[in-house]
Amino acid sequence: MKKLLLDLSNLGALFKEALPEEKVAAAQTSFLKQVSEKMHAFYRGKMQTLPKAGIYGFNWFNVWYTPGVSKVSTTIRDHPDASYQLSNRGNLVAVVSDSTRVLGDGDCGPSGGLGVMEGKAMLMKYLGACDAIALCVDNRNKEGKPDAQKLIDFVKMLQPSVGAVNLEDISQPNCYRVLDELRESCDIPIWHDDAQGTACVTLAGVINALKLTNRKISSTRVVLYGCGAANSTIASFLLQSGLDPAKLIIFDSKGGLHLDRQDIRDNKDKYRQWALAEKTNPQKLNTMEEAMKGADLLIALSTPGPGTILPEWIQLMAKDAIVFACANPVPEIYPYDAHKAGALIVATGRGDFPNQVNNSVGFPGILKGVLMVQARKISDGMAIAAAHSLADFAEKRGISAQSIIPTMDETEVFAQVAADVAVQAMKEGLARVQMSHQEVYDQALKEITETRALCQSMMEAGHIQAPPPELLQEVFEACITESKSS
Amino acid sequence: MKKLLLDLSNLGALFKEALPEEKVAAAQTSFLKQVSEKMHAFYRGKMQTLPKAGIYGFNWFNVWYTPGVSKVSTTIRDHPDASYQLSNRGNLVAVVSDSTRVLGDGDCGPSGGLGVMEGKAMLMKYLGACDAIALCVDNRNKEGKPDAQKLIDFVKMLQPSVGAVNLEDISQPNCYRVLDELRESCDIPIWHDDAQGTACVTLAGVINALKLTNRKISSTRVVLYGCGAANSTIASFLLQSGLDPAKLIIFDSKGGLHLDRQDIRDNKDKYRQWALAEKTNPQKLNTMEEAMKGADLLIALSTPGPGTILPEWIQLMAKDAIVFACANPVPEIYPYDAHKAGALIVATGRGDFPNQVNNSVGFPGILKGVLMVQARKISDGMAIAAAHSLADFAEKRGISAQSIIPTMDETEVFAQVAADVAVQAMKEGLARVQMSHQEVYDQALKEITETRALCQSMMEAGHIQAPPPELLQEVFEACITESKSS
Repeated sequence: MKKLLLDLSNLGALFKEALPEEKVAAAQTSFLKQVSEKMHAFYRGKMQTLPKAGIYGFNWFNVWYTPGVSKVSTTIRDHPDASYQLSNRGNLVAVVSDSTRVLGDGDCGPSGGLGVMEGKAMLMKYLGACDAIALCVDNRNKEGKPDAQKLIDFVKMLQPSVGAVNLEDISQPNCYRVLDELRESCDIPIWHDDAQGTACVTLAGVINALKLTNRKISSTRVVLYGCGAANSTIASFLLQSGLDPAKLIIFDSKGGLHLDRQDIRDNKDKYRQWALAEKTNPQKLNTMEEAMKGADLLIALSTPGPGTILPEWIQLMAKDAIVFACANPVPEIYPYDAHKAGALIVATGRGDFPNQVNNSVGFPGILKGVLMVQARKISDGMAIAAAHSLADFAEKRGISAQSIIPTMDETEVFAQVAADVAVQAMKEGLARVQMSHQEVYDQALKEITETRALCQSMMEAGHIQAPPPELLQEVFEACITESKSS
Repeated sequence: MKKLLLDLSNLGALFKEALPEEKVAAAQTSFLKQVSEKMHAFYRGKMQTLPKAGIYGFNWFNVWYTPGVSKVSTTIRDHPDASYQLSNRGNLVAVVSDSTRVLGDGDCGPSGGLGVMEGKAMLMKYLGACDAIALCVDNRNKEGKPDAQKLIDFVKMLQPSVGAVNLEDISQPNCYRVLDELRESCDIPIWHDDAQGTACVTLAGVINALKLTNRKISSTRVVLYGCGAANSTIASFLLQSGLDPAKLIIFDSKGGLHLDRQDIRDNKDKYRQWALAEKTNPQKLNTMEEAMKGADLLIALSTPGPGTILPEWIQLMAKDAIVFACANPVPEIYPYDAHKAGALIVATGRGDFPNQVNNSVGFPGILKGVLMVQARKISDGMAIAAAHSLADFAEKRGISAQSIIPTMDETEVFAQVAADVAVQAMKEGLARVQMSHQEVYDQALKEITETRALCQSMMEAGHIQAPPPELLQEVFEACITESKSS
């Protein structure tokens, strides 16, 4: 059998060669999962802590530790904001989860999110040059249920140690309360990547899709399918960007959101949904067949498909329709089916189709930007500025119906987003430190480039060892065999 | 003026050349503090996070993050202890403080301990190859007072993310309750370095001092001066090691501890001290003049001197007396004064005198050992085993009255302590994983050697840049000038 390359660049091709088309995606996912577990076991996790300061012999511990460090303690005591300059706090993000909704895997127990959170920490460093620590919090009460207040207390207590917090994979309804209360009460930026991160990257895609189809947001008709953390935030960002609420219709699992939805009004956990129900869908439509007639843009973040979004619904949309079908791991409708039904631009959450809506192009730059100016918050204005930054970056290097947003291998995008977010923070009076756009951009790009060079040299010098090639090959061959016999 | 070397090895000599003897120590401390602040600002802290796993192109994020990582989440969900193998939890220590008693500087505000905790994280990695994160916790209540329960809650919630917790610089009386409750209720090791760490290294010194003076602990007469977290733990370790409680007299600021000390009995924060008062000092002695008559060993951990311990008291001790005067930054009595008064062996907390009692030779190996066998606790038995390990290591390479304990530049001592602690954990049934002594030793030593090689190569390749030499030189010359004119 052919050799799988260490960079996995021929993975898709080898699977396509060996298997019938309909089996490729499943076999590839199975391979990635099995390899992932083996690689995590091989390296025993994937992040470490290391000095970033010189240790020129043991005498230097008198500088880095006692007695010298005493001056650092007393300086921070007298000027608490000096903690940003004199410790790593100024470049440090805590990735915090209670592991109750770990990507597609639901509640995985208190430690269950560690793989994902450490992965996020890895992306944070490699893409955005932010240091990050993975913290999975046990906020279960005596009945074993996750307690929003405990998570809130934990993050509040953590504040003095970090420059920002990235919340992640917290189940509903706790995720809303935790984010809203922490954004209100903390003096460091609190980011919920599942909500704001997805909304930011989606908005970037929407901005460019509207450009490509010569639409103005104020006259665009929009249907949102699903109203969880991501879509409710997307609705808010779209409205803040000029969407007419009368032209927005949002669906949850029970139908359209509107003023007659007493079930939402009476559910205190759905205060966000109710705020949207009050001002959108004035015609009180309840079916997709009605709502999709003449709609310009559909954003689905709901149940994995295929078959969740029907081609017949797409057929009802306006000419040059735009469809975001972003459920993972399988979109609500496959791109080729959506195109066949008349959609011009289709985006999904997947990397193997064009227009991947991938949070990873957003959060590393956003968090780098807020850290660099020591921002106190990430406002909606800053998140929306990040969306425009992503959209502009893509537009400058050229957009098409097949490429509306940047991908994470475009190094400069992270520096660009950092600079644009930092400038917005300064504009809104939320930055502790003033820097020019160019200063943020240059320093962020330098640090990102330097981080990647360091990772490269750790691999080349053997400080990070390559896995045995036969290990990958074995898993690959087993997946082929298994898939053929299934 | 002569050039200060980057490794600071000629620092003491240059100061001695330039200043009268009585001014050297103060000038050197002033230099270290000023350089420390400048170096922390230069590097913006001293620790970072980095991948420890290979990233061979962007396709590897499908392994390290979604979709592959899903298998890691579900495996940990189904087998929670797999979190030790599949994430960095298995090598990760949280260094947790509320910054209320930061070394000699008291309450420094919630972020005030970051310099010290990051320093501890640096020592943890460089000396013991343990990853570590510095967490300064805001546990202040509405009145601004540190709340023990909040700190306890924080650490309990943190448990799923780390392999062990090192508590640090927590003021009395909270430090006792926090440690005792967490040791009882947590399923990961909780270490309080100010108490257990100091006690462990002190006990190591005592063991070798007793050997050198041909004493048995069971017939040794001991006086402890000061009864805070460290000395109360030392008392407990000595008693567990065979000291006769009738031969132990402990002093706090109000006199000797004994059954008539109702002030201690009535103070619920002093439950540890009362437990000692109940069983020691049967003659109810209240003055050092009485207690020191014929004493073999004095351990002072009290008010910085000189002048706290009087030479006249030392003169009352038995022949070949042993004196630990460990207050920082200045010992209760200077070693030469103690020797002049008749002490044979003198230990202090300082690196510029022989026999430095320095926690840094203890905790990195102890924590490495407990992490490697995934211990559930650090029992007193394990801490005492670590003390014997330190003492034996020193004895094997040769001990004398001037050298009773290892120093932190003896690389192998950390691997030795790790192996001895791991074996003790297995003996006591506290280890989740079984390894042989040799396996722990070999792997720990390999990781420590590798960590130092990596740090070295980061400095050599410029990933960590050297500070401008003139910066150190300027501070040095300013300290000389200032000291001369004072």
